[in-house]
Amino acid sequence: MAGSKYAYVRNFELPDPLLPGTFMVFRLDGHSFHRFSDEHNFAKPNDIRALQLMDRAAEDLMDQYPDITLAFGESDEFSFLIRKSASLYNRRHSKIVSTLTSFFTSSYVFRWSTYFPDTPLKYPPSFDGRIVLYPSEREVRDYFSWRQTDTHINNLYNTVFWALVQQGEESTTQAHATLKGTVSKEKNEILFSRFNVNYNTLDARFRKGSTIIREEIEEQLAQESPTDAPAKHLRSRTNPHTRTVVLHCDIIKDEFWDARPEILSS
Amino acid sequence: MAGSKYAYVRNFELPDPLLPGTFMVFRLDGHSFHRFSDEHNFAKPNDIRALQLMDRAAEDLMDQYPDITLAFGESDEFSFLIRKSASLYNRRHSKIVSTLTSFFTSSYVFRWSTYFPDTPLKYPPSFDGRIVLYPSEREVRDYFSWRQTDTHINNLYNTVFWALVQQGEESTTQAHATLKGTVSKEKNEILFSRFNVNYNTLDARFRKGSTIIREEIEEQLAQESPTDAPAKHLRSRTNPHTRTVVLHCDIIKDEFWDARPEILSS
Amino acid sequence: MAGSKYAYVRNFELPDPLLPGTFMVFRLDGHSFHRFSDEHNFAKPNDIRALQLMDRAAEDLMDQYPDITLAFGESDEFSFLIRKSASLYNRRHSKIVSTLTSFFTSSYVFRWSTYFPDTPLKYPPSFDGRIVLYPSEREVRDYFSWRQTDTHINNLYNTVFWALVQQGEESTTQAHATLKGTVSKEKNEILFSRFNVNYNTLDARFRKGSTIIREEIEEQLAQESPTDAPAKHLRSRTNPHTRTVVLHCDIIKDEFWDARPEILSS
Amino acid sequence: MAGSKYAYVRNFELPDPLLPGTFMVFRLDGHSFHRFSDEHNFAKPNDIRALQLMDRAAEDLMDQYPDITLAFGESDEFSFLIRKSASLYNRRHSKIVSTLTSFFTSSYVFRWSTYFPDTPLKYPPSFDGRIVLYPSEREVRDYFSWRQTDTHINNLYNTVFWALVQQGEESTTQAHATLKGTVSKEKNEILFSRFNVNYNTLDARFRKGSTIIREEIEEQLAQESPTDAPAKHLRSRTNPHTRTVVLHCDIIKDEFWDARPEILSS
Repeated sequence: MAGSKYAYVRNFELPDPLLPGTFMVFRLDGHSFHRFSDEHNFAKPNDIRALQLMDRAAEDLMDQYPDITLAFGESDEFSFLIRKSASLYNRRHSKIVSTLTSFFTSSYVFRWSTYFPDTPLKYPPSFDGRIVLYPSEREVRDYFSWRQTDTHINNLYNTVFWALVQQGEESTTQAHATLKGTVSKEKNEILFSRFNVNYNTLDARFRKGSTIIREEIEEQLAQESPTDAPAKHLRSRTNPHTRTVVLHCDIIKDEFWDARPEILSS
Repeated sequence: MAGSKYAYVRNFELPDPLLPGTFMVFRLDGHSFHRFSDEHNFAKPNDIRALQLMDRAAEDLMDQYPDITLAFGESDEFSFLIRKSASLYNRRHSKIVSTLTSFFTSSYVFRWSTYFPDTPLKYPPSFDGRIVLYPSEREVRDYFSWRQTDTHINNLYNTVFWALVQQGEESTTQAHATLKGTVSKEKNEILFSRFNVNYNTLDARFRKGSTIIREEIEEQLAQESPTDAPAKHLRSRTNPHTRTVVLHCDIIKDEFWDARPEILSS
Repeated sequence: MAGSKYAYVRNFELPDPLLPGTFMVFRLDGHSFHRFSDEHNFAKPNDIRALQLMDRAAEDLMDQYPDITLAFGESDEFSFLIRKSASLYNRRHSKIVSTLTSFFTSSYVFRWSTYFPDTPLKYPPSFDGRIVLYPSEREVRDYFSWRQTDTHINNLYNTVFWALVQQGEESTTQAHATLKGTVSKEKNEILFSRFNVNYNTLDARFRKGSTIIREEIEEQLAQESPTDAPAKHLRSRTNPHTRTVVLHCDIIKDEFWDARPEILSS
Repeated sequence: MAGSKYAYVRNFELPDPLLPGTFMVFRLDGHSFHRFSDEHNFAKPNDIRALQLMDRAAEDLMDQYPDITLAFGESDEFSFLIRKSASLYNRRHSKIVSTLTSFFTSSYVFRWSTYFPDTPLKYPPSFDGRIVLYPSEREVRDYFSWRQTDTHINNLYNTVFWALVQQGEESTTQAHATLKGTVSKEKNEILFSRFNVNYNTLDARFRKGSTIIREEIEEQLAQESPTDAPAKHLRSRTNPHTRTVVLHCDIIKDEFWDARPEILSS
């Protein structure tokens, strides 16, 4: 066959299977999103449109890949849990990490104008992806606890920081200096005493991040047109009996997991 | 610090550096593009708009990543050569493969409406990516010869196949049967005798694929506004003295490479 | 420093850590041991000296590496379970697989003359090693069940085969033909009806392989000289309060594991 | 088949092929050889018996593996160059690194009594092994230059150090202090002025390490019995027309390599 003398170059493509029987966590991070958010005038400390767009791209990804049982996002990052029995793309590392990153990115750009109707996209945003394997449920739980704790730390800092800048008329340099070395309690006090803000009453979305799960839907609802579904609920194209639901709740305590054993099951 | 009891989960993220001193070839393939091209009514056997959009996303990627010295594309795939001395993202495998796939995908969706002004995108398309390492120039040359030979084989087949269907009024099943077991010469004869088409006079873009290189630009031109540049030439944002150029030429023979030693140099 | 212009070559040595939190199974196989056993006149179907030498090298390895909690051997292979929390050599793959294979080999040659006092070693024997990661206890149990089942299958076959050859005066070709397609029950019947051998009464070492565990030793015994210890019990040099014990028992059923929870614990 | 319900555990054994078309350097290092050399009373700074035993094990390994074209050793380490076209064990990483380390170790123990007839081996010594891939000849040359430069640095230091201790009656602590911060020239001067030793006249084996190559042998010699061959020349069992030769020469300059193009050729 023509071309066969060159086909040996395929032998340099090496297999890269991920260990079976382990949970995969696929995490995406926005690439240079500091600049991207500036160029597109994201509100500070949190831009609700940008967060909802992230959630929507994550829901699209979950809908496309039934092996994803859970997603958690904050800011410009999202983590997805892939069940440990998944044989997705024969568990080939490059294939999974590139395809999932590609699809999420594609959805983000595709849906941009829905969430930012008045802000044209100036240039194509990108994300990096990685996969981390966890052998046991304990480590998966701790991974998501780590991300939600991080959400809390970052959001508290950013909330106070932007209050100091936007309402307190400090420069960004001053605001960083003001916060340097402060613990959570002190940040809460600054918020309350200077800006009359009780941190715990802020939108749970900002404080807790977005947790996306799948939900069974009732037979009747399954027969309705997907467009009737409530906005927060994305009916699955791949399985009409489930839909994704975005929650803003605690995922560190046992309660969340005890109520949803299917997330960690094979 | 809050969260530190969970931070151990980071230890499960393992290093994945690619061997130094080797050429990287990064290849993208459209994911389920058979369906995607049907849903968006791509012309058969070649849709010039779709090919130009692929080229443009490839040029965007080259502009973003100066370590890419060459790109070659056909149909819904593109290959990029990354210089062997590149220290891009410290040569971390997942980081490179996910970020480049993401950026290409993003550009593809971002620029869709420019190339398909009358065809709204129905859903987000995705690509998979992979990286193959080649130790020597010989193997890199053979890799690109392999892809261009593949372009020829596929395009000749598709050209005759769609002539049989569109003009010869064969069903797709019949057309496959007609072509089964034929060699190149016979396919050329069918084209010529039944459809009066001389394959060698068809658009070189279809027969040779798209080869994208960088070109130095003259001082004067470098000072003009980028928008004055010819359509086929993408002025680099990262280096105002180079621009990318899309060629449709032979890259199997020595001539192409002898004229451009910088493609393979460190 | 002299030499520093060459030191860059160290950058080509890539990290190869094994995933944390997983059990490692390290398995050794004799390299070309068919020839080796012929050249050194091993008894067929089982050479007790050769098996005891394997056991002893395995005990030496366990004594050297406290992270090994269990070993199982048959014929010219041995498998070792390394606890999932082990940080041995920072879990570097090449370091572990090469060092453990080297030490086992070294012990095998070092102790050869003890077990084969009348058979000089003709040439240096070698082993290959590999490490397989298992995320959960279930898989570890199944791995060892797999090896012990294999022991049974191989030993039953070999026992009948060599009975046919040594006592039944069949050629090896005839013996293979006689056994072709037979199931266990039929092999047992051949043994019993033709050679008056009840397979289940044969030495458990041959039927069950060798299982090596660690055992706590009583305070008094710990103070005795190691040379007083029974032959089958190797006092640990690294921990005077434990010794290795070679068993020939069932490790497929729960009983073995239930009685020794420390084997699978962290 | 019995056992088939457990056979799934084999799926956890992942492929680990090394990139084709690259040189492999396999390096061995003695494991805890500081203690091993003390326990077996190795002469300081160099024990000629120990070095010759290392050389012999290296020759055995080269004889066993025709894909090795060059070896270089110093002290308790040895490096082996494996040709880039080698398909040894299908280039499986664990298989190669474990088997070669095992064989070298085995030969070392097997031949111990030949080189140390009056020093019984007290316990089994072990080595660790690793494989590093190099894409080009330049890097291979630089690798071996790095090792030979290291040989020089270490041997000069050790020669002066042990002269200070053995003849200068310094303690080891004093000797280290005396040498701290000295450059090569100063070390040479100490040797010459205090101990009347001209470093450059010391045995080349100590200063240059051991380089082992293959040599074609003349037809006549090839027909002689291997036992007639000079002691330094190991007739190959796998190829009667070659033998290994141990040299103590410069391998940094071009001369060595220009005279032996077969070392780097495919």
